[in-house]
Amino acid sequence: MGVLVLVMAVSPTSTDRSMHILKAEMPGPIVGKLVPRVRQTAKILYLIYVGLTVLEIGFLCAGGLSLYESCIYAFGSAGTGGFGIMSDSLASYSPYVQWVITIFLVLFAANFNIYFLLLMRKFKTAFKSEELWTYFGIIIVAITVVSISIYPLYNGLGETIRTAAFQVMSILSTTGFATADFNLWSPVAKAVLLVLMLIGGCAGSTAGGLKISRVVVLFKSIKRELYRMIHPHSVGAVKLDGKTVDDSTIKGIGTYFSLYIFIMIAAFLAISFEPLTFEAKASSVIACFNNIGPGFAEVGPMGSYASYSAFSKIVLSITMLLGRLEIYPLLFILMPSLWKRKSNA
Amino acid sequence: MGVLVLVMAVSPTSTDRSMHILKAEMPGPIVGKLVPRVRQTAKILYLIYVGLTVLEIGFLCAGGLSLYESCIYAFGSAGTGGFGIMSDSLASYSPYVQWVITIFLVLFAANFNIYFLLLMRKFKTAFKSEELWTYFGIIIVAITVVSISIYPLYNGLGETIRTAAFQVMSILSTTGFATADFNLWSPVAKAVLLVLMLIGGCAGSTAGGLKISRVVVLFKSIKRELYRMIHPHSVGAVKLDGKTVDDSTIKGIGTYFSLYIFIMIAAFLAISFEPLTFEAKASSVIACFNNIGPGFAEVGPMGSYASYSAFSKIVLSITMLLGRLEIYPLLFILMPSLWKRKSNA
Repeated sequence: MGVLVLVMAVSPTSTDRSMHILKAEMPGPIVGKLVPRVRQTAKILYLIYVGLTVLEIGFLCAGGLSLYESCIYAFGSAGTGGFGIMSDSLASYSPYVQWVITIFLVLFAANFNIYFLLLMRKFKTAFKSEELWTYFGIIIVAITVVSISIYPLYNGLGETIRTAAFQVMSILSTTGFATADFNLWSPVAKAVLLVLMLIGGCAGSTAGGLKISRVVVLFKSIKRELYRMIHPHSVGAVKLDGKTVDDSTIKGIGTYFSLYIFIMIAAFLAISFEPLTFEAKASSVIACFNNIGPGFAEVGPMGSYASYSAFSKIVLSITMLLGRLEIYPLLFILMPSLWKRKSNA
Repeated sequence: MGVLVLVMAVSPTSTDRSMHILKAEMPGPIVGKLVPRVRQTAKILYLIYVGLTVLEIGFLCAGGLSLYESCIYAFGSAGTGGFGIMSDSLASYSPYVQWVITIFLVLFAANFNIYFLLLMRKFKTAFKSEELWTYFGIIIVAITVVSISIYPLYNGLGETIRTAAFQVMSILSTTGFATADFNLWSPVAKAVLLVLMLIGGCAGSTAGGLKISRVVVLFKSIKRELYRMIHPHSVGAVKLDGKTVDDSTIKGIGTYFSLYIFIMIAAFLAISFEPLTFEAKASSVIACFNNIGPGFAEVGPMGSYASYSAFSKIVLSITMLLGRLEIYPLLFILMPSLWKRKSNA
């Protein structure tokens, strides 16, 4: 959901190239051609985006927040940016406000295609989405595990589940809001949050991270590979939502995943000289590359990246850009063949 | 280089299936069909293995070690096991002994196909191996970076380089010997060692880890993917040693890599409840899964895994098995289709 999609939505011309732009700008590997005209698609996607944001502003205003505060937090969750105006993020707001934001984080980190399908009354197709169910599954398992492991720290089940749900959604949607200093949580809860940082939201959402559809395809191709080793003559294909995922897409996702891991390893090596704990450095790379914000230890939600040297800040900034743009666009800049002036231009 | 290869070498019958066994038992993705008969191949591979071990015993005896000690350390480096008889591993042995072991670790973590080719006087093919040169490149870069970062801790350049070279080779070959408590080294040196743990030795060696040939193929497929995005009509293939790596191999390596990462993440989640540092837990998983032995912090070379609970020890033992057997064989056991009794059997 980038600037280019906005340009497409408001500009009158639309060519074949627009689809490529839409694909490049929508985070995640899968963008179906939903309506015949690209411009129409871009427009509807933006209407959904704006509609959800306005709805969130309304709900927050109803909770006693000023229009200004409501806009701040609605914009912060819609774009999964995660900026607030209080030094303790959202800890001092009412349970109602925290729940509203939690629910809107769930909505913004879901694939926008789903809303599209719902608007077009294709309910069956929408609820058949494997990514959507995996997304809900991850949310429920993560909230359950985190709730159990942080239960002793909070007063009663209500507060525990609210705090766990808020933090799980804030991290999974790569937003970075906090209602608690999760750096003080049990190591199990922290490990779960770390894994959620890597997964990220759905493809075609406003979230960052590896994206759930990629994780689903990777798991399915592992299963298929195992099956093929035992039954060498089988022709099992990887299917997503009933449709076969072609081999070049699987290969592409595998390559993307290796690149994703290699960049994090490279960034970790680059900032390894810093006199911070291993936990802080590892989580810094993961939190920056996946556009979360807060990590653990020194860079926890109540800490900051201030103690890093200028060099490391530049490295981490580059990983943020790489992560937000899904790696490739930034790497193209480094390729010499794109720097050559074309002879026929 | 497993028991099955030994069986193949000494058993008189050899069928088509033997090649599959050889492929399954030799760590790493690439085993060329070097001589027409599999039994011959297995025999020669074992002769190389035994020959190198005997040579190392000889060199160690010449350095003043008893035959018993020489055998212990030669066996420990040949199989990249890393067991010794001293509590400080190899720290108390002479520089000569340390250098001999370093060099034999380089030899044992190299692809045995190279020795095969050398024996068959195919020097040109042997030295054209891209994996071999990447292997040397990684060794040289790692020793240089580690030497620079630990220089202030040792007396002079000689001791620094010897200690750095020994540790780099002990980790890269997934052996786990130590001449120094590398847990006390600078964070940069430790970060380099951590990455070496993940890489591991060459395919077709006795080392564990991801294997250098897989890393090379992953990097090349990333490069190809980038090229293909800019030039959509290009038909660039991934080549290794001048030969095209077919798409199913690339896809297989991509799948293996995702499985490799997912298993480490799952193991980390499983042991995350332990009251050890993040660094200890993360490095435990990496050190066990890649069959190194020592990790960092509480599980460093002078520490131990004793403080882990029985449950975590079982989890880590399973990762060791998974890592040593290159993941798949152990996963087959879990597949229901292999438990069914075949109707035509």
